Amino acid sequence: MGRWEPDARGRLAKAALDLYSERGFEQTTAAEIARRAGLTERTFFRHYADKREVLFASSPAMQDVFVAAVAGAEPSAAAMEALAAGYDAVSGFFADRRDFARKRQDVVLQNAELLERELMKLASLAAALAGALRQRGVAPAEASLAAEAGVAVFKVGFERWVAPGEERDMAQLMRAALAELGSLAGGA
Amino acid sequence: MGRWEPDARGRLAKAALDLYSERGFEQTTAAEIARRAGLTERTFFRHYADKREVLFASSPAMQDVFVAAVAGAEPSAAAMEALAAGYDAVSGFFADRRDFARKRQDVVLQNAELLERELMKLASLAAALAGALRQRGVAPAEASLAAEAGVAVFKVGFERWVAPGEERDMAQLMRAALAELGSLAGGA
Repeated sequence: MGRWEPDARGRLAKAALDLYSERGFEQTTAAEIARRAGLTERTFFRHYADKREVLFASSPAMQDVFVAAVAGAEPSAAAMEALAAGYDAVSGFFADRRDFARKRQDVVLQNAELLERELMKLASLAAALAGALRQRGVAPAEASLAAEAGVAVFKVGFERWVAPGEERDMAQLMRAALAELGSLAGGA
Repeated sequence: MGRWEPDARGRLAKAALDLYSERGFEQTTAAEIARRAGLTERTFFRHYADKREVLFASSPAMQDVFVAAVAGAEPSAAAMEALAAGYDAVSGFFADRRDFARKRQDVVLQNAELLERELMKLASLAAALAGALRQRGVAPAEASLAAEAGVAVFKVGFERWVAPGEERDMAQLMRAALAELGSLAGGA
């Protein structure tokens, strides 16, 4: 690392999101992001491999938090209760990032390549959650179904959380979506 | 179209799948597929835009069958019951394609680019199903959740249907997965 730049990483992320929102992801270069953040292009590449990485840098940490909470849920918790413990943990992870998440969602939904990568991350999350559930003793077939449904709830809960004007916290929205799924599927 | 080749399209699809299974998707060329099918490369490109297209050619028709069945379900049917009507219709669509679907699944899961495209198709399916549910009068938030969960069930049911040795029909496996989801989520 070169000379110390206070929160260079955070400043770059904010500048990148602002530019992606204003001009579009494709029309923005790493040099422009660095300039907006008052930093050099070299500093950008010390923190991010490319401009896409800015949007996905925290996905592995988020997945780790989610999976650890499912793994660490009460031993007596059934599959969907263990996933609900995961929603609570992820809600803490995202608590200070709502503005960033809102802008990020708009950018990702407008670019097919970014959306593909997002869907791959969600598929990876589903596979990791299924693994954590199997480790808890859930049968493989049931673990896969619970994990896929759990990610469906997560996806919808996340969309609600970033919706304009929504102020309820993520954990509340996730648990509401999970309860709705119970009503929907329980009656089928 | 040039001279008539009996079921050239089907022969090309079968030859392609066989080669993708034997050598891998990336190691197979359109010329090799045509040769294996006893046809010319030019004939291949009259039927498919590229070698990837062989694997996804029926996705739009499948989505249409699924969505039409959801739209046409009994007016009194709740969201998940309408989706179950969709599973029945899709089961008919796939009835004669189990061997093809098994080989296809193996090929798609082994190639990141193909998997990304598959996930995009499933996201497109979820959006179309949510639209069909809204048309039935389901509230938008509930329609999105039901559609995402419905696709989760479809994905897991499909994986079970193509599993080695599985002989039950797709509709039976889909409805069983939907009932399992009811038990899982209803107790959360």
